[in-house]
Amino acid sequence: MSGYDRALTVFSPDGHLFQVEYALEAVRKGTCAVGVRGKDVVVLGVEKKSVLKLQDPRTVKKIAMLDHHVGMAFAGLHADARVLINKARIECQSHRLTVEDPVSVEYITRYVAGVQQKYTQSGGVRPFGISTLIIGFDVDKVPKLYQTDPSGIYSAWKANAIGRSSKTVREFLEKNYKEDMARQETIKLAIKALLEVVQTGAKNIEIAVMGEDAVLKVSPS
Amino acid sequence: MSGYDRALTVFSPDGHLFQVEYALEAVRKGTCAVGVRGKDVVVLGVEKKSVLKLQDPRTVKKIAMLDHHVGMAFAGLHADARVLINKARIECQSHRLTVEDPVSVEYITRYVAGVQQKYTQSGGVRPFGISTLIIGFDVDKVPKLYQTDPSGIYSAWKANAIGRSSKTVREFLEKNYKEDMARQETIKLAIKALLEVVQTGAKNIEIAVMGEDAVLKVSPS
Amino acid sequence: MSGYDRALTVFSPDGHLFQVEYALEAVRKGTCAVGVRGKDVVVLGVEKKSVLKLQDPRTVKKIAMLDHHVGMAFAGLHADARVLINKARIECQSHRLTVEDPVSVEYITRYVAGVQQKYTQSGGVRPFGISTLIIGFDVDKVPKLYQTDPSGIYSAWKANAIGRSSKTVREFLEKNYKEDMARQETIKLAIKALLEVVQTGAKNIEIAVMGEDAVLKVSPS
Amino acid sequence: MSGYDRALTVFSPDGHLFQVEYALEAVRKGTCAVGVRGKDVVVLGVEKKSVLKLQDPRTVKKIAMLDHHVGMAFAGLHADARVLINKARIECQSHRLTVEDPVSVEYITRYVAGVQQKYTQSGGVRPFGISTLIIGFDVDKVPKLYQTDPSGIYSAWKANAIGRSSKTVREFLEKNYKEDMARQETIKLAIKALLEVVQTGAKNIEIAVMGEDAVLKVSPS
Amino acid sequence: MSGYDRALTVFSPDGHLFQVEYALEAVRKGTCAVGVRGKDVVVLGVEKKSVLKLQDPRTVKKIAMLDHHVGMAFAGLHADARVLINKARIECQSHRLTVEDPVSVEYITRYVAGVQQKYTQSGGVRPFGISTLIIGFDVDKVPKLYQTDPSGIYSAWKANAIGRSSKTVREFLEKNYKEDMARQETIKLAIKALLEVVQTGAKNIEIAVMGEDAVLKVSPS
Amino acid sequence: MSGYDRALTVFSPDGHLFQVEYALEAVRKGTCAVGVRGKDVVVLGVEKKSVLKLQDPRTVKKIAMLDHHVGMAFAGLHADARVLINKARIECQSHRLTVEDPVSVEYITRYVAGVQQKYTQSGGVRPFGISTLIIGFDVDKVPKLYQTDPSGIYSAWKANAIGRSSKTVREFLEKNYKEDMARQETIKLAIKALLEVVQTGAKNIEIAVMGEDAVLKVSPS
Amino acid sequence: MSGYDRALTVFSPDGHLFQVEYALEAVRKGTCAVGVRGKDVVVLGVEKKSVLKLQDPRTVKKIAMLDHHVGMAFAGLHADARVLINKARIECQSHRLTVEDPVSVEYITRYVAGVQQKYTQSGGVRPFGISTLIIGFDVDKVPKLYQTDPSGIYSAWKANAIGRSSKTVREFLEKNYKEDMARQETIKLAIKALLEVVQTGAKNIEIAVMGEDAVLKVSPS
Repeated sequence: MSGYDRALTVFSPDGHLFQVEYALEAVRKGTCAVGVRGKDVVVLGVEKKSVLKLQDPRTVKKIAMLDHHVGMAFAGLHADARVLINKARIECQSHRLTVEDPVSVEYITRYVAGVQQKYTQSGGVRPFGISTLIIGFDVDKVPKLYQTDPSGIYSAWKANAIGRSSKTVREFLEKNYKEDMARQETIKLAIKALLEVVQTGAKNIEIAVMGEDAVLKVSPS
Repeated sequence: MSGYDRALTVFSPDGHLFQVEYALEAVRKGTCAVGVRGKDVVVLGVEKKSVLKLQDPRTVKKIAMLDHHVGMAFAGLHADARVLINKARIECQSHRLTVEDPVSVEYITRYVAGVQQKYTQSGGVRPFGISTLIIGFDVDKVPKLYQTDPSGIYSAWKANAIGRSSKTVREFLEKNYKEDMARQETIKLAIKALLEVVQTGAKNIEIAVMGEDAVLKVSPS
Repeated sequence: MSGYDRALTVFSPDGHLFQVEYALEAVRKGTCAVGVRGKDVVVLGVEKKSVLKLQDPRTVKKIAMLDHHVGMAFAGLHADARVLINKARIECQSHRLTVEDPVSVEYITRYVAGVQQKYTQSGGVRPFGISTLIIGFDVDKVPKLYQTDPSGIYSAWKANAIGRSSKTVREFLEKNYKEDMARQETIKLAIKALLEVVQTGAKNIEIAVMGEDAVLKVSPS
Repeated sequence: MSGYDRALTVFSPDGHLFQVEYALEAVRKGTCAVGVRGKDVVVLGVEKKSVLKLQDPRTVKKIAMLDHHVGMAFAGLHADARVLINKARIECQSHRLTVEDPVSVEYITRYVAGVQQKYTQSGGVRPFGISTLIIGFDVDKVPKLYQTDPSGIYSAWKANAIGRSSKTVREFLEKNYKEDMARQETIKLAIKALLEVVQTGAKNIEIAVMGEDAVLKVSPS
Repeated sequence: MSGYDRALTVFSPDGHLFQVEYALEAVRKGTCAVGVRGKDVVVLGVEKKSVLKLQDPRTVKKIAMLDHHVGMAFAGLHADARVLINKARIECQSHRLTVEDPVSVEYITRYVAGVQQKYTQSGGVRPFGISTLIIGFDVDKVPKLYQTDPSGIYSAWKANAIGRSSKTVREFLEKNYKEDMARQETIKLAIKALLEVVQTGAKNIEIAVMGEDAVLKVSPS
Repeated sequence: MSGYDRALTVFSPDGHLFQVEYALEAVRKGTCAVGVRGKDVVVLGVEKKSVLKLQDPRTVKKIAMLDHHVGMAFAGLHADARVLINKARIECQSHRLTVEDPVSVEYITRYVAGVQQKYTQSGGVRPFGISTLIIGFDVDKVPKLYQTDPSGIYSAWKANAIGRSSKTVREFLEKNYKEDMARQETIKLAIKALLEVVQTGAKNIEIAVMGEDAVLKVSPS
Repeated sequence: MSGYDRALTVFSPDGHLFQVEYALEAVRKGTCAVGVRGKDVVVLGVEKKSVLKLQDPRTVKKIAMLDHHVGMAFAGLHADARVLINKARIECQSHRLTVEDPVSVEYITRYVAGVQQKYTQSGGVRPFGISTLIIGFDVDKVPKLYQTDPSGIYSAWKANAIGRSSKTVREFLEKNYKEDMARQETIKLAIKALLEVVQTGAKNIEIAVMGEDAVLKVSPS
């Protein structure tokens, strides 16, 4: 195995890209994040990073706005996430200026995933150590939920989880997800799902809700 | 063998390019895709990636339009495919603008294969981890079916398969292919061929059909 | 483990970036620095580097101004710190020129952390071997305290410590921190916290205080 | 031997360039191609790549036009050949535009060989894995036949073979070549020579003939 | 330890930059240099490099002027020193032209140290193999003495030594240094300190003195 | 010895440049070439590369014109030689255009050797695998004969040999060379010298003669 | 020791730059050169490279003019020397054009040494394998003699030797050098010094003399 996983991201004899898989390990070490789509609402929930007693939790948030109508949660390396968030925000602004329309949620998801892919095929850089959940509303007023990962793959979901113990959380979501949930029901599902793995209880959970008005409300803030 | 398969794509003493062969392994790990040419029709069929319960299958599709009259299926790394698809779409548009004619199916196939070859001969990049099937109609109203692979080779086919168990599927196609099949017969052959290896049944198969009108119809969508 | 920690900053099989962790070791070898936020005041305290008898302590200071209203302490490689300080100062000036407003404390913190992240993802450079504490006042007249580290993460704090024995100092701060401390109380806490680990006594401590007037006063100077 | 044959194309202690020799191995693995010069005619013959039952043989051809009056056959990596063919075609067109005359057969041969040499002396690329046979007529109406190989050497021939079992075929040609053969005799010699090594018979042979009119006729097509 | 100290200057697992430490070894192998600040005077003293019988000692001097009012001694690789001296001199001139004022001694020291740091963080270069002592007078007419080392750290001193046996010399200086020494006393201390380690006696010592007039006088010249 | 002879052309502990010495091995493997200066004449002779029965010997020539009055023979890698010949020809033309005078023989020799040297000192390229003999007449009507080798050294000769068995040939030349030989005598000496090592006789020898008229005549052609 | 001496010129743990020391080995393998300064004269003497019987000794000279009033001898790799000589000559011309004065001997020596230093600190190149002796007269009509080596160090000398057995020659010079020698005495000393190590006698020595008229006379030529 020695050698296939160093320096450049190259193929191993059985067709693996080890650097990408190791980046996924960095994601799996990150705190858990969930996304749940309801009828007219889409919710992000994150396990708050264990904050030290004197730490101001505001800058440790794992939920960020990409544009007025698009939010993102991530699992993995915080500093890498910030780079992607910056790039995505600039793309959103530049899209507004050029096309005179906001980006669609899928457009910006594809953009984020595209940046992640590029870092798996060129020399001199390593892949991004994060997966993301991207939510938002387009002009069709339908809630959207996407996921991207370090390989640059993206996909749409009704509900999903990334980061530590995400498999457990996803199974919980699969068992309990219902179509067309109302606002409160959707939020509750997200919280309950996270509580499956967050042992320190609801106080360590942060929830962001976006309704038809496409305004992200984060609590507790 | 050690060393010939790392960093740069270089020749081994017996004339192999290992990175290209390892990329083919990534293709062989991908879900299966078939293409079948009938009389006035050409069909693509793909094994749907096993979708998790809450996943929205729309973004996991393995069939993409390159232009109005050209479609593509692929096997291998999804994120790599998106890069190639983007490049091919831009080439299609740019061709329309410069030459004021749509690309021919062979032209865009040659372009895709050319991009794949370039990534096998220059330093600092790895080969693309995908094979493609490209279908379409040119002004001659004859259905076209091409295949490309990570080495940058392309070839035309009456019917072919790529990805996991593609050998089994190809043998099935060889036994059952007939010249000048009608629309329904062509579609059936593609489905049956895939069912040879897709054990979860027809519900995990996606079919795209393009007739003389050069319009791609995908089902189930 | 051999190989994952050299040349490029690449992922190890379990998702670590070793070069970043080794840079943190360089920080842990640096002299200790603390930051404490009071009601209308924010304080930086540093263990003075053991100065040889004939050395002029002025150039060995570990506290620097980034702008009129922003100060910074650091732990780790002195020469690396100077590079970051220079970059931050230029950004502050350039911000004033372009936006015609001083930077906010969080803005410049994000900038410093962004530079640190970039050095963990690109080839040909090593990460910065320093962590920083950044203090200041914005137009809201609320004292601010941030920390950055070699990975490019930043976060806000009521009180925190970096460098040698920072864990011990942080525990002391957690036990003794009170909300809305007055100026003198805040300074005392910073000094006491440092004295937990500075065995040569208060003469080896340097304190910088910034009040609502956003003027940094350093003592002893 | 270890090390002289990797990364860069460098000399081994006994003066070999291993990467070039390994590329020749890739050529030796390719299907066989012959070229024969007659009185007023020059003929290329290639063993058709074993085509799968449903494969359209048109895109697997190993004979390509470089310009109206210049044809080329190759042995080795199909995808590499396409790169060289493209470069040669562009050079032919560009020559017509600049000099207002078609290229001579030797000129374009020297160009192709020059490109091949460049890939053996610079870092960051591997040699081309193909040898070529180039035929054509210049204004002197004399048939021309050249060969190039991965090292960038080229030479003129009355008759020659490249690729798998080329030594056997060349010996057959040496025994049976006659000066000033007529059109049919020349074609027959090329076919017979190939049949020495193509065990599946004449149906797997493709012949291209160019007479004084400098028009390439390929059969069977 | 193998690998952390090669090619790029990267961190070792315990946070060291080996290339920088090895460069310090080159400094420790260099001849000794001392600097001493008196009341209105600052003195540099260097152990003359053992000069062969027929060698002209003028070009082997280890004391150089950077500007009219700034002098520099160094220990380590002579050829590296010349590069730094040239860069520093150009900076001094360019500062005079742009700002219309001579550089301050600290400014040019910071510049020299900054150049040294840059060579420890970027790929493709090695650190400078020298430490420097920089002396001079600013408009405040106060004598200045700074030291820089291969890591890019700089600091101010009352008296200091670099190079071979510098620890012994520094201890001598610490024992014998007095505040506000007069010109002759300062010179004597520098000579005596050097004689601690220069066994061939005073004839192998070179002294440079700069008084309030900011003119460097070198003896014996 | 391992490592000093790879990738870059670097010095070995005993001051050798192995890549240059290995390139000389490639020269020693090449066919033999001789040069002999007579009174008003200078002659190049080469062992013709063993030509296969059907090969056209014209393109395998080892003697090339650089300009009207300058000729060159070489031993070593044919494809490398062509690169040097091209560069030299362009330099000759460019010299005529800029200086409005043809190059002197020594000027173009120095140019060729300079190109060869450059490939021994920079990274990313290997040395040229050829030695050359360069002949010609300048305005002084005196015959000139120079030699260059892969290290970039050049020197002038009365008579010399390069390539396979060049030592034997040189010894023969030393024994039989006379000053001021006439045209025929000079040609004979070159032929006899080559026949010392060319066992297949005079038919495998090619001779190029340049007299006072500075016109190269090659035989047999 | 393995690894510190390859690819890049990096420091070894004990502060050595191995590539520079290996380049010095290449110098020590070169033929010997001496320089001697008299009252109004400065002399260079070189052991002529053993010239083969038919070789024209003119192009194997180891003494070159850099400008009308500056000459240079070298020991080490002939081809490397030519590169340095070219660079130095261009600098001399460019200096005349820009400053309208010829270079001083020390100026061009510093320039040559500076080029040599640069090749010891940057990646992708190896050091120059030569040492030089540079002589000349400035406007002060005082004879000058400098030496440079592969590390980029330069120094002035009354008399010195470089290359093979230079230590023996230098000891001879130290014993026999007298101040203010007249022209003939100076030349004799240079010859005698060389004869200490040149066993084939005075016929293998070349001498270049420059008097107050700053004209280099070389004998035997």
